[in-house]
Amino acid sequence: MILFLVIFLHNIDFNKIVEVIKPTEEEEKKVKSLSDKLINTVNDIARKNDINAEAVLVGSVAKGTWLHGKGDIDIFIKFPLDIDEAHLKEYGLFLGFESAKSMEGKYELRYASHPYVTGLIDGFEIDFVPCYPIKSADELKSAVDRTILHTEYIKKNLRQEQKNEVLLLKRFMESVHTYSAEFKVGGFSGYLCELLIIYYGSFLEVLKAAADEWKPNQIIDPRDYGTGSDFTWPMVVIDPTDKKRNVAAALTLQKISEFIIASRNFLDNPKEDYFFEKQLKINLNIIKEEFKRRDTKTFLISFKPPEIPADSLYPQIKKTENSLGEVLKREDFSVFNTGSWTDESEKVIILLELDVWKLPEVKKHYGPYIWSKEHQNRFLSKYGVKAYIEGDRWVAEIIREYKDAELFIEDILSQNKIGLLRFGKNIKNEILKEHYIVDIFEFLESDKCSEDIKRFFYEYLHKNVYLSR
Amino acid sequence: MILFLVIFLHNIDFNKIVEVIKPTEEEEKKVKSLSDKLINTVNDIARKNDINAEAVLVGSVAKGTWLHGKGDIDIFIKFPLDIDEAHLKEYGLFLGFESAKSMEGKYELRYASHPYVTGLIDGFEIDFVPCYPIKSADELKSAVDRTILHTEYIKKNLRQEQKNEVLLLKRFMESVHTYSAEFKVGGFSGYLCELLIIYYGSFLEVLKAAADEWKPNQIIDPRDYGTGSDFTWPMVVIDPTDKKRNVAAALTLQKISEFIIASRNFLDNPKEDYFFEKQLKINLNIIKEEFKRRDTKTFLISFKPPEIPADSLYPQIKKTENSLGEVLKREDFSVFNTGSWTDESEKVIILLELDVWKLPEVKKHYGPYIWSKEHQNRFLSKYGVKAYIEGDRWVAEIIREYKDAELFIEDILSQNKIGLLRFGKNIKNEILKEHYIVDIFEFLESDKCSEDIKRFFYEYLHKNVYLSR
Repeated sequence: MILFLVIFLHNIDFNKIVEVIKPTEEEEKKVKSLSDKLINTVNDIARKNDINAEAVLVGSVAKGTWLHGKGDIDIFIKFPLDIDEAHLKEYGLFLGFESAKSMEGKYELRYASHPYVTGLIDGFEIDFVPCYPIKSADELKSAVDRTILHTEYIKKNLRQEQKNEVLLLKRFMESVHTYSAEFKVGGFSGYLCELLIIYYGSFLEVLKAAADEWKPNQIIDPRDYGTGSDFTWPMVVIDPTDKKRNVAAALTLQKISEFIIASRNFLDNPKEDYFFEKQLKINLNIIKEEFKRRDTKTFLISFKPPEIPADSLYPQIKKTENSLGEVLKREDFSVFNTGSWTDESEKVIILLELDVWKLPEVKKHYGPYIWSKEHQNRFLSKYGVKAYIEGDRWVAEIIREYKDAELFIEDILSQNKIGLLRFGKNIKNEILKEHYIVDIFEFLESDKCSEDIKRFFYEYLHKNVYLSR
Repeated sequence: MILFLVIFLHNIDFNKIVEVIKPTEEEEKKVKSLSDKLINTVNDIARKNDINAEAVLVGSVAKGTWLHGKGDIDIFIKFPLDIDEAHLKEYGLFLGFESAKSMEGKYELRYASHPYVTGLIDGFEIDFVPCYPIKSADELKSAVDRTILHTEYIKKNLRQEQKNEVLLLKRFMESVHTYSAEFKVGGFSGYLCELLIIYYGSFLEVLKAAADEWKPNQIIDPRDYGTGSDFTWPMVVIDPTDKKRNVAAALTLQKISEFIIASRNFLDNPKEDYFFEKQLKINLNIIKEEFKRRDTKTFLISFKPPEIPADSLYPQIKKTENSLGEVLKREDFSVFNTGSWTDESEKVIILLELDVWKLPEVKKHYGPYIWSKEHQNRFLSKYGVKAYIEGDRWVAEIIREYKDAELFIEDILSQNKIGLLRFGKNIKNEILKEHYIVDIFEFLESDKCSEDIKRFFYEYLHKNVYLSR
């Protein structure tokens, strides 16, 4: 197998790929000098204002595992452990704002698990994040504090020659669309990539493990903490810096599976194209033709996204999408597939594709088993003459409330009925303010079908498209 | 409760009902004298032909529990236990034929668990059944032998005044359509009625037990054999003459439930009408109107019944009906209800009512989980580009073979496909010879809709109609 692979992979020149995907020398110099400057700036401002704080570089730039063009700089500002959180935030944000200002960058406040300042300076995205300089996970005061431990762990354990392997793995994952722990993707985080390289040794060994060895509920426990079975998750990677944390907690079963398939596809027929974004030929007429050929009924629900962070928005949209699918099924309609998309600012689209969208007038309503006279009488007092016995169960033939899925969707999205859906309150309010329900063909004919939306439809129709080249 | 019942049932004169449903004095005299004559005839012919056999009267006439107009006479011809079965049949049938002939009746050979002669003499149906005069179930040589034990047990244990209670129970069950252990009905046998009266004491006590006490898998064990839990059946009544036999083995869950509901209905509002067949007003236009209002799609499949005994025919039809429902569901059609009917000689009708009978072109075909590369490759070699991942499972979007239920039914009843249905070979052959598939409305407009078939449709649309008055 190994021999076979070596021969087979001959046609791939990994060094050449690394040259393309790793930062240029100039880029590296620029990022390094900018980072140094930023750290000095923060520390200067802290000293001048008598704030006991110290800036450090963390993240992929600090670890030397960032990809060409992705040199986002993460500056963590460490405060003494005994300072309270309110002051940490106040001083931290002050230092972030002042530093960005003095470097003549744009900046704004953002929230993750706690607030931080993000700025755009010299074309680089910079995050200033206040934190506590903990030495072990036991001292953890906020989720961001881990980043310090992670950066230190990788710097200490990732060998120099393995850095290129991380770049290959990240880039491969990016172009097969399984990279990023953001909720939008639900894929592999950068730290997870680094741990996999340390654990398996190289890019190819990670892919071979995924292709041939990974099992459902795969457990990877680099430091043998033995805590893997404490988690129930599609994949468990025990954090070497915290035995109580699963590094793969944001990874979905879908993305694990997609990475496994992409790995098999690559190993079966390796191509350099796997390290570059796939170019799709997306044509409106072909999309129309494909939806027509399917012969199903597809509705689009569109509305404005609420103003909440992307990592809150995507799960809320997904929840709404799933809940719509569920209520449709509860009304006996049959849902073939669903999908959703947002540009995160102007538009959310939820796609509902049905294979049964019209139903007859009559409907079976199952009641209690016949054995309890009390239950029987309660049922009969309501359904009286329409009831009969099936086996040992009461059933009534009643008039169906919704014979048409479109009318049902319209109704469920109105003030009176919307409570039947399960979703976050932000989306609920937006839908109640304004929403549109349109047939896919009506939408495709309209001028609202942007390139991004076309891509969403194309990806919906060709779900595995990125997993092969 | 008892007091309440007595008051409430005041308006029912059970004596008056018994007078109507029990045999007239003249009828009783006629049946008794005919029975005596038949027994003497058989015994005479046996003696003259040197056959060691003795005729006895068994069944409801022997037990004094037969209803007015139902005086069918069962003559069992007992042979010594040491005679082999071939000779028992030969001599038994000979005696049956000769006796019927000498009484100037019509007669023919029939088969239950073993062959017997049935004749029509003086307007009464007479069965001549050869058997062994066993003393206990341990000696059982054929299923009919039990009848001797049953007759003896009832004669010994049913008190004189309880015979009228049996008549009331049988008649009640008859008119709520839960009487008869034949497969056509799947209801309560005469022997089971008698045992229930002995066990509970009276007609009203049986109804009260059914209405208020019976539970799922109700066990009644008159002689406390303790063998009830050996059976898994909707209802278990241990035969007092055989602890290994469930007297209620032919009783369906449906008929138990219907009897329970009819009992509750009667006790809630007792009427003499419960002892007489319900008169239905069946009108073709109303049937049409009701099917139309349901808004479903109803197909009828009709063919000639095979020439097999009714107790084989009905289960075979039911099995065919169920199997058609199952294959339709397997193709993603939704079956609302099914029904079937036969006149046992010229026509079988299977009714299939669907609430989803048209489906789109595309269909999901679920494949293996992604974890096994071997299974994956087998699936992909077949479904290739149409396959994608859902969670950790492969699924392909394929072209649906059948978009229309009617076309599917036509196809499944053809030579090539019929093997996919599960049913007895007799019906299969008849269907392959000739069958018709028609829409209910087409059929209702045709001249083929006899009164009996109208009644079948009416009963299909009003399933509990006989359970209340």
